[in-house]
Amino acid sequence: MTSLPLGEALFAVQRTTPLVHCITNFVAMNSTANCLLAVGASPAMLHAVEEVAEFTRLAGALSINIGTPSPTWAEGMQQAAKAAQENNIPWVFDPVAVGATCYRQTLSQQLLALAPSVIRGNASEIIALTGLTHQGRGVDATASIDEARDAAITLANRQGCIVAMTGEHDFVTDGTQHWRLTGGHSLMPRVTTLGCALSATVAAFIAARPETPLVATVAALASFGVAGERAGALATGPGSFQVALLDALYQLTPSDLDTFTGLEKG
Amino acid sequence: MTSLPLGEALFAVQRTTPLVHCITNFVAMNSTANCLLAVGASPAMLHAVEEVAEFTRLAGALSINIGTPSPTWAEGMQQAAKAAQENNIPWVFDPVAVGATCYRQTLSQQLLALAPSVIRGNASEIIALTGLTHQGRGVDATASIDEARDAAITLANRQGCIVAMTGEHDFVTDGTQHWRLTGGHSLMPRVTTLGCALSATVAAFIAARPETPLVATVAALASFGVAGERAGALATGPGSFQVALLDALYQLTPSDLDTFTGLEKG
Amino acid sequence: MTSLPLGEALFAVQRTTPLVHCITNFVAMNSTANCLLAVGASPAMLHAVEEVAEFTRLAGALSINIGTPSPTWAEGMQQAAKAAQENNIPWVFDPVAVGATCYRQTLSQQLLALAPSVIRGNASEIIALTGLTHQGRGVDATASIDEARDAAITLANRQGCIVAMTGEHDFVTDGTQHWRLTGGHSLMPRVTTLGCALSATVAAFIAARPETPLVATVAALASFGVAGERAGALATGPGSFQVALLDALYQLTPSDLDTFTGLEKG
Repeated sequence: MTSLPLGEALFAVQRTTPLVHCITNFVAMNSTANCLLAVGASPAMLHAVEEVAEFTRLAGALSINIGTPSPTWAEGMQQAAKAAQENNIPWVFDPVAVGATCYRQTLSQQLLALAPSVIRGNASEIIALTGLTHQGRGVDATASIDEARDAAITLANRQGCIVAMTGEHDFVTDGTQHWRLTGGHSLMPRVTTLGCALSATVAAFIAARPETPLVATVAALASFGVAGERAGALATGPGSFQVALLDALYQLTPSDLDTFTGLEKG
Repeated sequence: MTSLPLGEALFAVQRTTPLVHCITNFVAMNSTANCLLAVGASPAMLHAVEEVAEFTRLAGALSINIGTPSPTWAEGMQQAAKAAQENNIPWVFDPVAVGATCYRQTLSQQLLALAPSVIRGNASEIIALTGLTHQGRGVDATASIDEARDAAITLANRQGCIVAMTGEHDFVTDGTQHWRLTGGHSLMPRVTTLGCALSATVAAFIAARPETPLVATVAALASFGVAGERAGALATGPGSFQVALLDALYQLTPSDLDTFTGLEKG
Repeated sequence: MTSLPLGEALFAVQRTTPLVHCITNFVAMNSTANCLLAVGASPAMLHAVEEVAEFTRLAGALSINIGTPSPTWAEGMQQAAKAAQENNIPWVFDPVAVGATCYRQTLSQQLLALAPSVIRGNASEIIALTGLTHQGRGVDATASIDEARDAAITLANRQGCIVAMTGEHDFVTDGTQHWRLTGGHSLMPRVTTLGCALSATVAAFIAARPETPLVATVAALASFGVAGERAGALATGPGSFQVALLDALYQLTPSDLDTFTGLEKG
């Protein structure tokens, strides 16, 4: 049984409808907005340097995802992250495929310097990002969560942030406390950009519970875990899974998270 | 009972498959295209200054939405709107979040100068836009349709266009005639970009019925109202609602609109 | 009954999870990624000149779609196609609406010079593209597959590539061998970007079976044909069709293709 107040975190999202400013990739925009609306948050997507900092200051949290980067978008990301840092607005960094190209590595280093509150990635991305901060290059190899555990803890300590690593199971650490989550469903990797949507959902939860970002992060992951299990029980493939997941996120109650059995000290 | 020939307008869309040129935000593109196809129109999305005016001239109507603006896109929007204006092609303006940033306010003023045929927005956006045209700045506050009624009428008269304001109920005015619509479902705000898709659907209807743009606009809103009610009766959350809405838009018949009971003089 | 080993091609996709680098239009990105995941491939979407060639070299195939072009994207497309050509990575070209504007015609000529392995389009696009390579201008007219048959064969011979033309039925040629496919469902044109997703799916199949690109192309089309028929039997409109199509693509087995009856010499 969980020993963190996860239900309270979901209740806070549902009650306060936090505004989440997302600068994310083109593939993820629609599904991310729909996941945020389903859990009870208010999404806003905009990226231009002409307005991005002005808008970030209005938001409860910022979520940056580098899936389809380009120079003008990268500049928008940095201005938004700076505005978040300067105004004590929590922000989540999703380093999509950071190990794949030099361009992503450079951009990720610039964003890491702007102090994200949470980093959410898969095992390969966390290893690449950790290597990046002391070796200068990432790795591409597909890694397991257990293989990346030490890298996640190192990264959390070095950055002074929370690292949330998702995959066959999930691992969350602030460098000191570590949590392991099970849940979800085998169809989740067959639906595009669920990880991206989860990163933005983490932002919604830390917007609603900024004083306890570790609990907020775990609650966001648990929400996807519970909703994913329920959706998987109804689905006959990735199309019906995606539909059922949005319905399940919408139907989720605080008590669903308080009775979540997939959390243990990790 | 309705006193406008709404069924005829839907029939005209279904019979003529109007080509609707959309320059919209990244979040809305896919869902907008699917809504247009469902009601029987033909969507086309393109934005580059290198081709945008050439294409607008081929279209039955143009729909411009400023949800995720940037300078190159803004230039494409303006060239498209100019091409529409010069060729008597009706166009719809959706001023997403115009009150939120200075950049959106400036862009909106430039687009208003190009004489949109219809402005479709929520109450806050209509108030912001109306304020913009005489005060220079918008407002952010969440407003109700009733609070924004006078602003909508003022804007319609000042611009010589139709204003369609949607929310807990809808209000449509050409400055002289006013209509109020009820319908839809409480899940609609939980699905992203339905308002954006509705703006493009208004464009499809005015492309099919350019001689009666007020009737066309009301018919588009009534289509979403009826389809939304039917989808809501089938849905268990926002995922299944979105699926059911596309099915319901596709199944809509002219007689569904002729028997629509949610319209009254407003 | 089919006389091509289509089931083997699907099995190869499912077994090897080919990485498909997609540079596609904004409308199609999400649905394309979901179709690729459903058939068993691994999608990646990125476009910036800063990283595009580096990434293409990691991919099993490249898919380029010009639906929403702009100069910076066009440069990314050309650099990716060059990287593909230089590294013997097969690539698929989807010339969306090439007949509609001069800008698309010029861009398409530049991309044709980089030797696509497969061109996938509708009849009007194939006619426009064929005219383009000797007359300098495309045509807009809606054409039937039978009207475009000669253009497709001409284009295949001139380019030394495969041409896959889809519509009321499909026609595939390498200039010498011709195949005709039936299947699918009348709701398919009511769902946006299925043709774009099919182009990327062709790329997945040629990545898995580069030694037999004609078989791979036919197998991709047959997969959509079979899945489309099954989805159509379950759907009540385009919303439920899209969901059912992803489920059906996911459930597809090699024996489904080996018993496909919609293929004949064309």
